[in-house]
Amino acid sequence: MDCRSDEELYQLVQESRVHTIEGMVADYIPALAKADLSSLSVAMAFPDGSCYSAGDVETKSTLQSISKVIALALALLDNGEEYVFQRVGMEPTGDPFNSIIKLETIAPHKPLNPMINAGALAVSSMIKGESVEERLGRLIHLTELIIGEEGIGYNEEVAQSELETADLNRSMAYYLKQHSVIEDEVDEVIELYTKQCAIEMNCVDLAKVGLLLAMDGKHPATGEMILPPRVASICKTFMVTCGMYNASGEFAIRVGVPAKSGVSGGIMASVPQRCGIGIFGPALDDRGNSVAGWDLMEKMSKKYDLSMF
Amino acid sequence: MDCRSDEELYQLVQESRVHTIEGMVADYIPALAKADLSSLSVAMAFPDGSCYSAGDVETKSTLQSISKVIALALALLDNGEEYVFQRVGMEPTGDPFNSIIKLETIAPHKPLNPMINAGALAVSSMIKGESVEERLGRLIHLTELIIGEEGIGYNEEVAQSELETADLNRSMAYYLKQHSVIEDEVDEVIELYTKQCAIEMNCVDLAKVGLLLAMDGKHPATGEMILPPRVASICKTFMVTCGMYNASGEFAIRVGVPAKSGVSGGIMASVPQRCGIGIFGPALDDRGNSVAGWDLMEKMSKKYDLSMF
Amino acid sequence: MDCRSDEELYQLVQESRVHTIEGMVADYIPALAKADLSSLSVAMAFPDGSCYSAGDVETKSTLQSISKVIALALALLDNGEEYVFQRVGMEPTGDPFNSIIKLETIAPHKPLNPMINAGALAVSSMIKGESVEERLGRLIHLTELIIGEEGIGYNEEVAQSELETADLNRSMAYYLKQHSVIEDEVDEVIELYTKQCAIEMNCVDLAKVGLLLAMDGKHPATGEMILPPRVASICKTFMVTCGMYNASGEFAIRVGVPAKSGVSGGIMASVPQRCGIGIFGPALDDRGNSVAGWDLMEKMSKKYDLSMF
Amino acid sequence: MDCRSDEELYQLVQESRVHTIEGMVADYIPALAKADLSSLSVAMAFPDGSCYSAGDVETKSTLQSISKVIALALALLDNGEEYVFQRVGMEPTGDPFNSIIKLETIAPHKPLNPMINAGALAVSSMIKGESVEERLGRLIHLTELIIGEEGIGYNEEVAQSELETADLNRSMAYYLKQHSVIEDEVDEVIELYTKQCAIEMNCVDLAKVGLLLAMDGKHPATGEMILPPRVASICKTFMVTCGMYNASGEFAIRVGVPAKSGVSGGIMASVPQRCGIGIFGPALDDRGNSVAGWDLMEKMSKKYDLSMF
Repeated sequence: MDCRSDEELYQLVQESRVHTIEGMVADYIPALAKADLSSLSVAMAFPDGSCYSAGDVETKSTLQSISKVIALALALLDNGEEYVFQRVGMEPTGDPFNSIIKLETIAPHKPLNPMINAGALAVSSMIKGESVEERLGRLIHLTELIIGEEGIGYNEEVAQSELETADLNRSMAYYLKQHSVIEDEVDEVIELYTKQCAIEMNCVDLAKVGLLLAMDGKHPATGEMILPPRVASICKTFMVTCGMYNASGEFAIRVGVPAKSGVSGGIMASVPQRCGIGIFGPALDDRGNSVAGWDLMEKMSKKYDLSMF
Repeated sequence: MDCRSDEELYQLVQESRVHTIEGMVADYIPALAKADLSSLSVAMAFPDGSCYSAGDVETKSTLQSISKVIALALALLDNGEEYVFQRVGMEPTGDPFNSIIKLETIAPHKPLNPMINAGALAVSSMIKGESVEERLGRLIHLTELIIGEEGIGYNEEVAQSELETADLNRSMAYYLKQHSVIEDEVDEVIELYTKQCAIEMNCVDLAKVGLLLAMDGKHPATGEMILPPRVASICKTFMVTCGMYNASGEFAIRVGVPAKSGVSGGIMASVPQRCGIGIFGPALDDRGNSVAGWDLMEKMSKKYDLSMF
Repeated sequence: MDCRSDEELYQLVQESRVHTIEGMVADYIPALAKADLSSLSVAMAFPDGSCYSAGDVETKSTLQSISKVIALALALLDNGEEYVFQRVGMEPTGDPFNSIIKLETIAPHKPLNPMINAGALAVSSMIKGESVEERLGRLIHLTELIIGEEGIGYNEEVAQSELETADLNRSMAYYLKQHSVIEDEVDEVIELYTKQCAIEMNCVDLAKVGLLLAMDGKHPATGEMILPPRVASICKTFMVTCGMYNASGEFAIRVGVPAKSGVSGGIMASVPQRCGIGIFGPALDDRGNSVAGWDLMEKMSKKYDLSMF
Repeated sequence: MDCRSDEELYQLVQESRVHTIEGMVADYIPALAKADLSSLSVAMAFPDGSCYSAGDVETKSTLQSISKVIALALALLDNGEEYVFQRVGMEPTGDPFNSIIKLETIAPHKPLNPMINAGALAVSSMIKGESVEERLGRLIHLTELIIGEEGIGYNEEVAQSELETADLNRSMAYYLKQHSVIEDEVDEVIELYTKQCAIEMNCVDLAKVGLLLAMDGKHPATGEMILPPRVASICKTFMVTCGMYNASGEFAIRVGVPAKSGVSGGIMASVPQRCGIGIFGPALDDRGNSVAGWDLMEKMSKKYDLSMF
């Protein structure tokens, strides 16, 4: 682990950790319901290779919705902007991430953005490959390139648990198939999406994902261009407008940093040109964001003046 | 065919037939798209066994949504009122038959009534049997008892065609499964529902279905109680409040008779204590009802003073 | 009072009265909030002039939404069917009576039916007259003709109380004015509508309103045609499809009689060719219907076999 | 006019001007419908006091929805963050700016953000003052401080024209009053809001508004802090998440700059620390944004690398 524990961050973690008791785990995914509610970890990764961390840093968690950002990047690489945005919109919704209503009320019937579940299902279906294995493999490989390390995998127990409770996602996927937004077999899309959500890492690796986006797609150590700047820019923009579920607007006001959350309690943030941040804290608020993670982001934003606005 | 062609009905059919050019076939079901748009047939069946018909009487068509009434009767026989209405509501919706919105907005998340697709899927899943074949067989058998004749079957080509284009119904079924309204495998429910919709008959048999409900479930010829009066009453009530898609309110005002339509262009009507009516006219209006069939029902209601109101 | 108290009805009232504790008064209208929650009264009026009653028969209450039926009758008399239904639809909605959503989502932007508030506001605006006083006077006069007695008035305290809390109705009226469904000044429409809702009577008079509709508009004593049969028929049809707020479908299944409720706890029912029923019981369920009144209607429907279906 | 016409900007204006034929004026406001569809003007104002412009620079237009940003700033100054955001949310909606649906579906019933009409009505009602005149005067005075010049006024003809066609806004205001989000008389709120929308200026002054926000509230010439940095930050954040109606998400992706549009065809943009941009081009797309103005912003963003993301 190339990330030093940091006293200042530790103080912030201790202060934010008290908020974990206000949250709940995502109990609709049985395997997530086992998470330690009081856990909280954070890492900050900087362009010069330095890294600071605090809390339960060793704990690995699944990405859940955070994976939507990496999947979007790969779908853009595979298909180009024009193709992707013919099938998925760019607008925030104001609705919960798993709402199906706007698929019916908005014409044409395409998901409003790639960060809600409907849009993420469409995005995953655009990742190229002959099989679910190949497509998932390509996504994991891109994740490894972004982090700059091999050995990323997905949590099979979580994936299996989610597959068994994915009926709402199946419902959305069939709705999208009805309207030709998805062309694949729904079962395959659901399998790919569910396994993608189960990709796991610790907060240090998560911070490195944020850092690469903060650096416009260029790997800070090697200088290699992992993602084209335009792709990194698109990802960060969606993180601002729709990254924190239907609390994205509030997060932009209170924190002001591109960030994406997941129901595992993860938050991945990108402070342009400055740093990447990774947080895991499984106690969730009623909109699906980590309670303590949100509080910690607010504190870090104020202390280090991170807001873009 | 024990149904005499009738000159007066023939005149009405000729007058209503001109409206067929205003309609369209249900082109989202390829096999239905082949129907002869200008076709129109009608039969009236009376308690004394007399029957009058006009138009293309020999033409068999599939029941489509009309089957929802018979399926509801069987589900009530199989499970009782209380069980059924814990899973399906009793309220008209004002929305199109294939709308998914209220499944999300209404709590608890159950379909508003058994005549919209979501409700009908839930109802079909409550028909008892070890397999799709057995369940479908029981439904067909009940249909034969109602009509008083054997030999009812379903149109395999139409069923197959609908199965291939049933993604919206699959979407709704998975939504219902998510909320435990449906407990079966979705694939089985969809297969059963789709085959049920493909049950076919001509307008004379359809009129006999209407007649049995008009007679409170008692077979007019044999006096046998095929359905309990309460079940027949429930069916007729839903036919008034939600039988003609989201034009049910208007039909009640303009015609005033319990009736159920299907996108094959069928209308089955029950005039309490007086007669059953069967109509097939595949040219549909924008809400899914037979254009000429609706017009014919209006003319018949006025001429024979059929309205309940 | 020409209505005999009846022992059998009294027994039913006593049984239903226990349900009053399950309900609440309509507390958003301060003047209604003073009503005696445990009160319950009923009258049945028959074509031969006989009348039976039980409970707190002397108590006068305001009509509230029940007035929508009489206002619709007058608007139809004043403007004809075609004009009225160009501005108001015929479909039940499945939504609460004060919902504004469908005004935006349905095109053209007209209220779905005359029994929800939006539709009733449009209907009231179609009542002819030079002033609110004249229009209200004409409505009260029609009510007196229907009942066959003079002396009907409105409760000024209730009207004033509602006027002060009518912002949601004002909101709907301006929405309708935006879409040219209402052409009058909104303030006048609101005043007329609010005073119309405050027309008051006891359950015996209410039963007589129901009786006239049951007799197709003909006054049972004098034989005078107060309403054309078509107008009476339209009123009864809406009472079936949308008379009991968003529980109309359930009421049709459980009771099976055309009826209209109001948040004062009133229910006015018409059993075709047989009788009119008037009930007041101010304890309301969560959809705005009298709890004990509903229960009493169920009991009467079973005991006297009142269902149309 | 202290703003030099610029050849490079002129070229861009000429290229974007061809798109004006794709747009329409906001014909629901009669006085706006007279605007010259082919008109287009732009100005860029820089911290060093330099300013470049092109097109029909002398033309004054009304701010319309752009005024929502200044009104929000004043409401925050008058009441503080906590008070304001108890009454108005922070989330983008995905719905049109004049949609009323979410007021009913979201609980508590407060507008989702200050940039949709419902939210802007609530915000205007929070501007302090004894009368509409005083409140409007305070808003105009703040506008003058921001621009650094006196002489700002509102267009009475446009205000009058909008007042006469403001029924949808009245509808929303009464809805908000029903739920205590607005406490004032609705007529006053509508008058204030309508006059605020009619504040007029040319594109140079508009660019200066953008510049002050870009400079975190500090006047670039005098160094005076006109708005606290936090208020300027909140304004810019909402401009990113909800500034361009229900195309805000797409604008963030394609242009990447905080901006607010109005149905007069105005766009006011703030490029942090770099410049303010003012555009008027009255031909609108179907979501209410200036067609040519949007195109021009895309071209300027690419040419001058303005995106924050």
